[in-house]
Amino acid sequence: MKATVYKGNKTFSVIEKEIEAPEKGEVRIKVAYSGVCGTDVHIYHGMMDKRVAMPQTIGHEMSGIIDAVGEGVEGYAVGDKVVVRPLDDRLVKASDKGFNHICEDLKFIGIDSPGSMQQYWNVPAFVLHKLKAETDLKLAALIEPLSVATHDVRRSGLVAGETAVVLGGGPIGLLVAMVAKEVGANVIVSEVNEKRIAKAQSMGLHAVNPTKVDLVEYVKEQTDNRRADVVFEVAGVQPALDIMCEVAGIRGRILMVAIHGEKKPVDLFKFFWKELSLIGARVYEKEDYEKSIDLITKNELPFEDMITDVQPLSNIQQVFENIDNNPDGMKVLMDCQQ
Amino acid sequence: MKATVYKGNKTFSVIEKEIEAPEKGEVRIKVAYSGVCGTDVHIYHGMMDKRVAMPQTIGHEMSGIIDAVGEGVEGYAVGDKVVVRPLDDRLVKASDKGFNHICEDLKFIGIDSPGSMQQYWNVPAFVLHKLKAETDLKLAALIEPLSVATHDVRRSGLVAGETAVVLGGGPIGLLVAMVAKEVGANVIVSEVNEKRIAKAQSMGLHAVNPTKVDLVEYVKEQTDNRRADVVFEVAGVQPALDIMCEVAGIRGRILMVAIHGEKKPVDLFKFFWKELSLIGARVYEKEDYEKSIDLITKNELPFEDMITDVQPLSNIQQVFENIDNNPDGMKVLMDCQQ
Repeated sequence: MKATVYKGNKTFSVIEKEIEAPEKGEVRIKVAYSGVCGTDVHIYHGMMDKRVAMPQTIGHEMSGIIDAVGEGVEGYAVGDKVVVRPLDDRLVKASDKGFNHICEDLKFIGIDSPGSMQQYWNVPAFVLHKLKAETDLKLAALIEPLSVATHDVRRSGLVAGETAVVLGGGPIGLLVAMVAKEVGANVIVSEVNEKRIAKAQSMGLHAVNPTKVDLVEYVKEQTDNRRADVVFEVAGVQPALDIMCEVAGIRGRILMVAIHGEKKPVDLFKFFWKELSLIGARVYEKEDYEKSIDLITKNELPFEDMITDVQPLSNIQQVFENIDNNPDGMKVLMDCQQ
Repeated sequence: MKATVYKGNKTFSVIEKEIEAPEKGEVRIKVAYSGVCGTDVHIYHGMMDKRVAMPQTIGHEMSGIIDAVGEGVEGYAVGDKVVVRPLDDRLVKASDKGFNHICEDLKFIGIDSPGSMQQYWNVPAFVLHKLKAETDLKLAALIEPLSVATHDVRRSGLVAGETAVVLGGGPIGLLVAMVAKEVGANVIVSEVNEKRIAKAQSMGLHAVNPTKVDLVEYVKEQTDNRRADVVFEVAGVQPALDIMCEVAGIRGRILMVAIHGEKKPVDLFKFFWKELSLIGARVYEKEDYEKSIDLITKNELPFEDMITDVQPLSNIQQVFENIDNNPDGMKVLMDCQQ
């Protein structure tokens, strides 16, 4: 079988290795597609070398078909289409209060253990979600990032008729916007890259450039001065942190989706004054996957537009180099059988 | 009648003026006690000179007895003991979404209009809450700051059995701690001033000095590593902002009670990683006053210990000068009939 491995120093290799039988409690998946996540790009940049046991196969946004079933696995059979919720919570403790998806000793499969950018992938059965036979496996590779979005929107408590502002129109930002719109909210995406704005607009989303319009005034006009009920901070930059507290109306909820590696200045006075809430959101829970699988199965949202490239596994090095040079692209899938 | 006025430049005067009849919709209150709030000290320091129409009577933490009832006022009679919820929300708009207590054009009585540090005070009847005849008027002067605490605790969603850490053991911090304890939570107060720690302990509260113990380790020991379910940031200093994200456990709720006038560095990564929430809380709503009135009426908490001094109105200049020089004191009441 073919596998890719990250070797550090911005380098991947494609290797040949033996297909392994699944161990007890595991299944072997013939991987169909594996999307490139921002986290994978982070790994490529060497930012997570402490967690990745190089040389290691990475990848966690995937779809595939069960190819072999290990001893003791019930409810799954060869031929089942599946996706993986890549959270290994076997070290959960009482002090995690039942929040297994963010437990202190969580192992993220594809970072802390081998991932999906290979032809066959053995995983414990408890991470599986089964798909319907007719589900498109390309779209199914979006279920993992879509579940980040369904989790963010669920955590926000967004309801129909509310206004949501999404700061950042990259892949997660647009998925959040699509899910928020599906809930029935009025959604405004704020993005500085004109090509991403055009992309969002082509997908039927309402997108504006905050360097060209006064975003706060614009949102006030759109909402009879109520401003945003919910703000999703997906951009991860200081101007987004500055504007999130301005664009949020009274009792506004701000979802912290972006990963800020360093302490950043925040206008805490506005939290006091308008009784804002800042709500952290990380990965997803089982019900978020179920919601995402339902959305992908129905396929009523412009998911296909999110996939801007599909490349064979053997091109992995080129794929990561291209992502660095092309900030306009959305989701690139690796075809794991090519 | 006797009234005090703030004239700017850290100066109060005591003046004689005519008692005025209440206008339509107003009552005249014979003020019993008026507590000195941190906001009043802020005014004394000249920090709010843009809002205060000098010379102006300030004060808003009060109790009193209705002395005259204006035309059109129903439900109140001369002799009724009352407190004032000093929020004038008559300029509320649809864009305030029904959150009248923090509406954009809120006028705070005692800052934006004359306050209670005078012998008689005319106020619109809609700000009144009636007390029982047997209510102690000294304790009743604590109802306003206590309502800040009942609002904070209500906004936090704190329930019995949870652990709350209160950062800052000043008057509001101790009131928050008392209310949190009354809810049935395990409460730990973190305070750097040894005299305030001793005061808190004398009131039956669990208080520690974070410059002497490692607060995070201490809370972990007290909670089987769960850390705090709720953190109240009442201190308003950077070390509190730094430790609030550490001491909060998974899905912890952090209440932003302190007023931070400038943008401050916040560890947003922890909000993402542990799915923390930051919840802004400002003043109070009607139900918070009702809860506070109930607590003061029952008088089962050590409210009396909160009142560390009672001074005649005529001593107002000395009172404010002393507060500046005595960071150990808790609540000082002005006796408005002396």
